[in-house]
Amino acid sequence: MQESKEFPTSRAYTTLTDEPKFAEPIPNVTVALGRDAALPCVVENLGEYKVAWIHIDRQMILTIHRHVITKVQRFSVSHDSQKTWLLHVSGVQQEDRGYYMCQVNTNPMINQVGYLQVV
Amino acid sequence: MQESKEFPTSRAYTTLTDEPKFAEPIPNVTVALGRDAALPCVVENLGEYKVAWIHIDRQMILTIHRHVITKVQRFSVSHDSQKTWLLHVSGVQQEDRGYYMCQVNTNPMINQVGYLQVV
Repeated sequence: MQESKEFPTSRAYTTLTDEPKFAEPIPNVTVALGRDAALPCVVENLGEYKVAWIHIDRQMILTIHRHVITKVQRFSVSHDSQKTWLLHVSGVQQEDRGYYMCQVNTNPMINQVGYLQVV
Repeated sequence: MQESKEFPTSRAYTTLTDEPKFAEPIPNVTVALGRDAALPCVVENLGEYKVAWIHIDRQMILTIHRHVITKVQRFSVSHDSQKTWLLHVSGVQQEDRGYYMCQVNTNPMINQVGYLQVV
C-alpha cells in the first residue's frame, strides 16, 4: 500500500496521455457555393508534432503546421488557441466538397476526418 | 509570314512548358523485407514549387521538399540532381508496401504514383 501511494497507477496513464490526441471529432460542415467555411481540428498535447490538413478527394496536401502548401489560394490555416487548428476555405467551389483529413505526425500517425458539403 | 517569324508559335508552347512537369514515370520497385529501397520522382521546371511524397495506403504525408514530416524514421528524402527527388525507405517493413504518390503543389496540383512491392 505504501508503494502504491508513492507510485500511483495513474502515473502510467498520465504518461500515455501526454501523446497528442484528438479532443473532439471534426464536425461535418455544410456551406453554400461561394461562401466561406472552416473545419476545426482540436488536438491536445500536440507538443513538437505538427498538424496537417489534406483534401482526401483530391489527395491534396493543403497545410502543415502554420504553412499553406497548396497554391489553391482559397485555403488557409489558423491556430485559434492552444488546441484548435482551423482550416479555412474562402469562396467555396464545388471541387472543394468532400472529405478532409486532419493528420498529426506521431508514430504511428493519427488522423481524423470531416466532411464539407457544398450546396 | 513576317509576323510569324518574329513571334514564332513555339513561344507559346515554351511558356507553357515552363510549368513543372514529370519527366518520367515512377518505376514500380520490388524490395526484400528489411532491405532499403528508393523511389525516384523526376520533375522538370520545378521552380519555386515543392515536391511532396505521400504513402497512399496509409494516407500519410512522408516528406515535403527537403523536410521529412513523418516520425517513422525509415523514411528520408534526397535531391540527387536538378530534377530527381528520391524517397528512401530503409529496412523496409510489410506496412511500407503499396502506392506512393509524388505530388507537386502547382495549381492545379500534379502528381504521379509508383508501387513498392515487398517480398
